[in-house]
Amino acid sequence: MIRAGIIGSTGYAGGELVRILTVHKDVEVVWYGSRSYIDKKYADVYQNMFQIVDAVCMDDNMDELADQVDVIFTATPQGLCASLVNEGILSKVKIIDLSADFRIKDVATYEKWYGLEHKSPQFIEEAVYGLCEINRADVKRARLVANPGCYTTCSILTAYPLAKEGMIDMSTLIIDAKSGTSGAGRGAKLPNLYCEVNENIKAYGVTTHRHTPEIEEQLGLAAGEKVLLNFTPHLIPMNRGILATEYAKLKKEVTYEEVKAVYDKYYTDEKFVRVLEKDVCPETKWVEGSNFADINFKIDERTGRIIMMGAIDNLVKGAAGQAVQNMNLMFGLKESEGLELVPMFP
Amino acid sequence: MIRAGIIGSTGYAGGELVRILTVHKDVEVVWYGSRSYIDKKYADVYQNMFQIVDAVCMDDNMDELADQVDVIFTATPQGLCASLVNEGILSKVKIIDLSADFRIKDVATYEKWYGLEHKSPQFIEEAVYGLCEINRADVKRARLVANPGCYTTCSILTAYPLAKEGMIDMSTLIIDAKSGTSGAGRGAKLPNLYCEVNENIKAYGVTTHRHTPEIEEQLGLAAGEKVLLNFTPHLIPMNRGILATEYAKLKKEVTYEEVKAVYDKYYTDEKFVRVLEKDVCPETKWVEGSNFADINFKIDERTGRIIMMGAIDNLVKGAAGQAVQNMNLMFGLKESEGLELVPMFP
Amino acid sequence: MIRAGIIGSTGYAGGELVRILTVHKDVEVVWYGSRSYIDKKYADVYQNMFQIVDAVCMDDNMDELADQVDVIFTATPQGLCASLVNEGILSKVKIIDLSADFRIKDVATYEKWYGLEHKSPQFIEEAVYGLCEINRADVKRARLVANPGCYTTCSILTAYPLAKEGMIDMSTLIIDAKSGTSGAGRGAKLPNLYCEVNENIKAYGVTTHRHTPEIEEQLGLAAGEKVLLNFTPHLIPMNRGILATEYAKLKKEVTYEEVKAVYDKYYTDEKFVRVLEKDVCPETKWVEGSNFADINFKIDERTGRIIMMGAIDNLVKGAAGQAVQNMNLMFGLKESEGLELVPMFP
Amino acid sequence: MIRAGIIGSTGYAGGELVRILTVHKDVEVVWYGSRSYIDKKYADVYQNMFQIVDAVCMDDNMDELADQVDVIFTATPQGLCASLVNEGILSKVKIIDLSADFRIKDVATYEKWYGLEHKSPQFIEEAVYGLCEINRADVKRARLVANPGCYTTCSILTAYPLAKEGMIDMSTLIIDAKSGTSGAGRGAKLPNLYCEVNENIKAYGVTTHRHTPEIEEQLGLAAGEKVLLNFTPHLIPMNRGILATEYAKLKKEVTYEEVKAVYDKYYTDEKFVRVLEKDVCPETKWVEGSNFADINFKIDERTGRIIMMGAIDNLVKGAAGQAVQNMNLMFGLKESEGLELVPMFP
Repeated sequence: MIRAGIIGSTGYAGGELVRILTVHKDVEVVWYGSRSYIDKKYADVYQNMFQIVDAVCMDDNMDELADQVDVIFTATPQGLCASLVNEGILSKVKIIDLSADFRIKDVATYEKWYGLEHKSPQFIEEAVYGLCEINRADVKRARLVANPGCYTTCSILTAYPLAKEGMIDMSTLIIDAKSGTSGAGRGAKLPNLYCEVNENIKAYGVTTHRHTPEIEEQLGLAAGEKVLLNFTPHLIPMNRGILATEYAKLKKEVTYEEVKAVYDKYYTDEKFVRVLEKDVCPETKWVEGSNFADINFKIDERTGRIIMMGAIDNLVKGAAGQAVQNMNLMFGLKESEGLELVPMFP
Repeated sequence: MIRAGIIGSTGYAGGELVRILTVHKDVEVVWYGSRSYIDKKYADVYQNMFQIVDAVCMDDNMDELADQVDVIFTATPQGLCASLVNEGILSKVKIIDLSADFRIKDVATYEKWYGLEHKSPQFIEEAVYGLCEINRADVKRARLVANPGCYTTCSILTAYPLAKEGMIDMSTLIIDAKSGTSGAGRGAKLPNLYCEVNENIKAYGVTTHRHTPEIEEQLGLAAGEKVLLNFTPHLIPMNRGILATEYAKLKKEVTYEEVKAVYDKYYTDEKFVRVLEKDVCPETKWVEGSNFADINFKIDERTGRIIMMGAIDNLVKGAAGQAVQNMNLMFGLKESEGLELVPMFP
Repeated sequence: MIRAGIIGSTGYAGGELVRILTVHKDVEVVWYGSRSYIDKKYADVYQNMFQIVDAVCMDDNMDELADQVDVIFTATPQGLCASLVNEGILSKVKIIDLSADFRIKDVATYEKWYGLEHKSPQFIEEAVYGLCEINRADVKRARLVANPGCYTTCSILTAYPLAKEGMIDMSTLIIDAKSGTSGAGRGAKLPNLYCEVNENIKAYGVTTHRHTPEIEEQLGLAAGEKVLLNFTPHLIPMNRGILATEYAKLKKEVTYEEVKAVYDKYYTDEKFVRVLEKDVCPETKWVEGSNFADINFKIDERTGRIIMMGAIDNLVKGAAGQAVQNMNLMFGLKESEGLELVPMFP
Repeated sequence: MIRAGIIGSTGYAGGELVRILTVHKDVEVVWYGSRSYIDKKYADVYQNMFQIVDAVCMDDNMDELADQVDVIFTATPQGLCASLVNEGILSKVKIIDLSADFRIKDVATYEKWYGLEHKSPQFIEEAVYGLCEINRADVKRARLVANPGCYTTCSILTAYPLAKEGMIDMSTLIIDAKSGTSGAGRGAKLPNLYCEVNENIKAYGVTTHRHTPEIEEQLGLAAGEKVLLNFTPHLIPMNRGILATEYAKLKKEVTYEEVKAVYDKYYTDEKFVRVLEKDVCPETKWVEGSNFADINFKIDERTGRIIMMGAIDNLVKGAAGQAVQNMNLMFGLKESEGLELVPMFP
């Protein structure tokens, strides 16, 4: 039995980790960290866990935690994991960080976009970017995994095969993404109030959203060139789900079949990536509650562009599900263990 | 491996049966009946099942189906199951009917409230009302189970202990219920359009809703007296969930502890009924996607009334989940097999 | 031109006052009070008012304000109006208080349910309860109007004719009310976050909601007897709207026509109360954005009860619209001036 | 008093016309056409109009109607207006067609994208494309106005100044649009059911949506060149609102102030177009129920692109409001008469 600790277990991503790990046959959660709710019963914070989780919330003492568990998940604001981790801890436990601290290899880029000083730059190189479908081998060997962002996961998986195979002009790539409100976290902030979000849609963080450099770095690695792109997130009146609509110029004329073959090359064997049938557009509802990424594309011969679309549940494949997928790989378990979640509809 | 057939597998309740049975370790669904989508791939109707279910939709030939399976679920409009079932079929397979055909023991009452002639009255007496928490022993022995209605399940479980123990004046019982829109089914009807339901609430079926006699009959059996009550359903802008708020006069002054003891007497050992802690009101979101019924109550000393509240997911404990719970009992499986569904929040 | 000042203009009710008064032909808003946003442009707080309102937010100095305006609206938390008002102010301006400070005639009751000491009990008797349809004559003469609560307005109007005419047994009256989330105000609180409210319904304040004594007092005045009742509010995933479903025993058998005649007696001449046609249930969406209260009822011969239903927009007839209706009466304007708002659908 | 007739008065756009015209001081609606509800009271179809509109629904006999009114609005499916209109009618009344029949000057383009044979091509040249901010002079003289589509209005107004002034490379223009569900009409179709739309987002009509050639034609006229672009609509779980996010390469480096000056040049005097302050992103909720188009932009120096954003209420500025604005111009009224609708928030 793997013993797991969660720092930040009462945010939405942390709560989703608990939901998934609670029924994972090889894992026992022994530490429900939550700075905001220390000593409060976890099920009093999340009543859905009443009679399921019987623990009280703990602090975020990572040193003490490292002595008690095999793996630590940090589902916390940026900067916390980097400020707590050290070699002593990493020698004892594996860490899966759901924040952005170790996602970006270039410290200056991280510090610029996040407006933070990085407290543990010495671990950045070692940290593995935990997009399992792309970095599976490295994840298996990792002590420290940087779990990708929600927008990032969706954006990268949707364009990755075409970037990797050099089929699109990367300088033309535009990502227009739409997210449910759980992506904004559980903080009590005016813009996230029901009446502010409901019956409303807006773009935000235009040209400045922090997931931009993460997407650029990863797709740049895939394409073998430096990538600059436009990424525009939008807030949608729904709880869960991210849809990314991505536009790029095709380098040459291609048929549906040719593009499909490229997607299939990378994803046919991937359990959690579903390339949909021709002309079926991904919908976030079809993946809700599951670890799936649904992807499809459409070629526009008139403009020479391809429109790629991807949908995930931001809290599962975009956060907790992917974290568990990483954990499974790190501990030599079946990659899909605990993640055979059937999407819930409606 | 139990072989299951579903007639009406493309309605919302049928889809939920598929979602649950797909991961039930002892069951294989071999017949996805759907009159509307015959010969169409099931996953083309419900894209969430893409790469999970690889079957095509079949007709509703119950005779043929009876030769192929061990259990038939009928998730169909009222009247269909009664018109198809016969002794030959019942001698071969167990039937769990999610429609109202066999829920009400008094044929005249059924025919009056449903405006239908009952086609198989000879099976009504044999049929077991499949509210597992109340009729567990009978369900285990049944060939034909009448799966309770969604409103009914919630309404009955919420008041049952107090009705059974004679603590409330049954003539004063009022049930004000609120349901998500999936309860209205997947038919393309104007009142169920997004723009008609969203940002709106209304009562409907006031004094005439068909679940009324079913609730009256069952609570009447519990109380040992004929019960007439007011049941008022409301349509809520959400997909899933039913909340029942129930009002009754207490027969005598009682304390919180006394009432709590009565609820505990009936539900402490029930895995799927959670009597919440003092002053915690049930919320439908806390049970979403699960088979739980969350219940609590509040005594109003000023008026001498008790307010009872219950919340379920109408498609799970109110339909498919309860049907599987019944199936588990009928086939001697662990009652909770396949139903350890953790509520999804948010 | 009437000069108006609003204290609390950046809450949801205050914002609605601005929306209505902006196009009221006899009124000019000259003071946008908002303790939270002093010196900030009003349109930066409510972008819908961009290029419509060009003012900056002011403090809540009622003395200064009294010198500048003819009428003050206080759309503030309980206690503020009572702590600011004095004879000097009342001698200069009319006050319409949207909080609860002057709604309840019995100070002890107010202090008990609100947990506050009343700072100006000397004005309670003078204050007129501003439910225009009932207290029109008194409102016209008032210096200080206590604008009714949202739940209260809906609950009282729905039952008033039958209470007044003695047709229902007041001891059996139960009010089950459902409200959109704007009723909870614009404070940044966890329970009002989008993800907490969306896809969810719950009861709250069961047996303890503060609108209870207000409803009891007013319906008691109508019925000519002391009334104790159960009032249970529910939070609904929508922005606006209140639906009240009310249950009571009829004192004797009556026909639809007899009850309809009673409703018509009180409401036929009321512009803002619409008694719907037979069997049409009120829906909140049909009154959205308007000052209407839509009302109907259904007699249940089986139980001897009548089910009354009422729908309003909580921010209009339940707050700002009613406040303007009161203002119109107090200043001798046409009662419906500025309130001929056509409900918006969908 | 202008006498108006509406063909298609019971669709969502037709209903919005009624809402607006009901309080328009110079107009009387005398014909509520609705093929689906002939002889039914209009207020029985739209209960919000109870006690406001006292008419019954009529057929769509345009010849008879032409004898009775001064202006006809056709809020009908594509093809109907073109099949009914003739010179005799146009010699008697003005027509404002909310369908696409006369929007596109090139018949072949219309017939290809709409899959219909055009029944009155002889009127296409005469018809004026009724985007008032751009074609004001022509609208004033028109007998037949083609009221722009909802997506089109939003998409064009957002990019128009930059296209007109040659600041963006039109071959790089990409429009990613998001619409509330009322845009899909009031037909009882499965994909528009509450449970299918709620908690969901999808793209649809990718590369094939019919508003594409309309946008291309109009922006092409502005830019003085043939334009091909990608337009991708998305369905959003909300009733009203369209947000367009538009991407294009800037032809040369420009400052915020330079671009702002261009927008101001075209829109400062436009009552219904609000160019927001720096860094304020348009939100659909801020224009709900009003005839405003809210627009802003952001320059991305990293990529050399500009991101333009526009928000409208699809039923007002995107349909009925714009139709009334056109009517006002055609009849020499104040352009904003009846359209001083303050956005409703929340």
